[in-house]
Amino acid sequence: MAKEISKHILSYVLVLLLLYETVSFDLKKPCKSFVLYQHNIAYDSDNTDNATSATILNPLGLGSFLFGKFVIFDNPVTMDQNYLSKPVARAQGFFFYNKKSNFNIWVACTLVFNSTQHKGTFTIMDANPIIEPTRDLSIVGGTGDFFMTRGMATFKSDLIQGGKYFRLKMDIKLYECY
Amino acid sequence: MAKEISKHILSYVLVLLLLYETVSFDLKKPCKSFVLYQHNIAYDSDNTDNATSATILNPLGLGSFLFGKFVIFDNPVTMDQNYLSKPVARAQGFFFYNKKSNFNIWVACTLVFNSTQHKGTFTIMDANPIIEPTRDLSIVGGTGDFFMTRGMATFKSDLIQGGKYFRLKMDIKLYECY
Amino acid sequence: MAKEISKHILSYVLVLLLLYETVSFDLKKPCKSFVLYQHNIAYDSDNTDNATSATILNPLGLGSFLFGKFVIFDNPVTMDQNYLSKPVARAQGFFFYNKKSNFNIWVACTLVFNSTQHKGTFTIMDANPIIEPTRDLSIVGGTGDFFMTRGMATFKSDLIQGGKYFRLKMDIKLYECY
Repeated sequence: MAKEISKHILSYVLVLLLLYETVSFDLKKPCKSFVLYQHNIAYDSDNTDNATSATILNPLGLGSFLFGKFVIFDNPVTMDQNYLSKPVARAQGFFFYNKKSNFNIWVACTLVFNSTQHKGTFTIMDANPIIEPTRDLSIVGGTGDFFMTRGMATFKSDLIQGGKYFRLKMDIKLYECY
Repeated sequence: MAKEISKHILSYVLVLLLLYETVSFDLKKPCKSFVLYQHNIAYDSDNTDNATSATILNPLGLGSFLFGKFVIFDNPVTMDQNYLSKPVARAQGFFFYNKKSNFNIWVACTLVFNSTQHKGTFTIMDANPIIEPTRDLSIVGGTGDFFMTRGMATFKSDLIQGGKYFRLKMDIKLYECY
Repeated sequence: MAKEISKHILSYVLVLLLLYETVSFDLKKPCKSFVLYQHNIAYDSDNTDNATSATILNPLGLGSFLFGKFVIFDNPVTMDQNYLSKPVARAQGFFFYNKKSNFNIWVACTLVFNSTQHKGTFTIMDANPIIEPTRDLSIVGGTGDFFMTRGMATFKSDLIQGGKYFRLKMDIKLYECY
């Protein structure tokens, strides 16, 4: 009899805990993860049709690593490396160079999804030491399908073509999904 | 007897769960929600007394939608649509235009409350596609009365008077309150 | 017998709750707290070797409080007040003046740790009313040792030497540690 009651209680407890699970997170494994590619074509005053980013302030001459160069972008984001693939999102934001001693940028960037699969946004913001092979950046908030999300984006410079084009591999891991 | 004990245990469990509730959130309904109006009067070099925002960089000529225009602001925030109502907060931050194909901005903005009702801040940051009737933007952190808050702000362009004045309706929904 | 079972159940419950504790936070006391000092040496076109920050846009003449002045920095961060102490982190980011009525800035800044003790980043973002003796600013995300962290930084202008140098005392309190 007592054993049955104890089972009864345990099931209550489990139900309550399950209810709580909706706002608990397992930080060992992401609740969503995917890989995306961001394509950046720099405006050179002669490529209006193709350009996806533009320098709004030139480097000011402090050191030799572009300190002060400030770029605004609206870059297509694709599922594969091909620039011509159908974009699943746009990466909107800015970055600037901020070091005297090497190439280093600071970036804030919102991925804006507007596909049949995903609608919504999330925002990445962090230092981005581009000389490192991979960099972890914080994901600090989101809307729509990514409502209130948080997580991490690992950036890798997948391809760099001088100052004209770069492709960024973004390994997205969301640890809070609602 | 066993029944009494089971009740005893259940109450323990409930107390423990209630303690946990302090850090759990119901993401179906906000813990705080309110509507605010933000007023932006653009500086035109002849309205120093009234101006609340100013362009620090002009568009650079990439497309016809102001790409690169960069604005800093310290806008009054009121409870109603009247610009002359007593502000309950200031909206401090910046935005810039970042699209070739239509009017679109990216914004980061802190609401700074300093009234008898509220002291503290929270910060909104997201893409803001101003051609859409309403836009959801992430609220990523706060201080004071809004300590550690997160949530969503739904922006609506409530009134636009050329490039001189706009009023933004901000529907604030906080989902994490401490 | 029933009593033994009830003990048995309670221990189950406690174990389950302890498992949950890994994602619960006590918001009355921080999980990590420390004091750091940030040193900012403004570039004056003649101090390339020492400069750690530079103005990329000058004030535009709206009022007398530097409205529009925009600064990018990569400042050393030390454990004590001595600028020459070994940095434990760099503070990378930007700030700008945004008020007509007094000196007030808005700042976004990532602390980048790369010492034997700490590797990782966290990002501070908020209004920063520098005329106040202390200011609370939000910490909105992090990576590495500060993975997914959130919290508060209390800034105090510890020393100001004209427009050339300032030292910022940063009282860091993290309330979410993983």
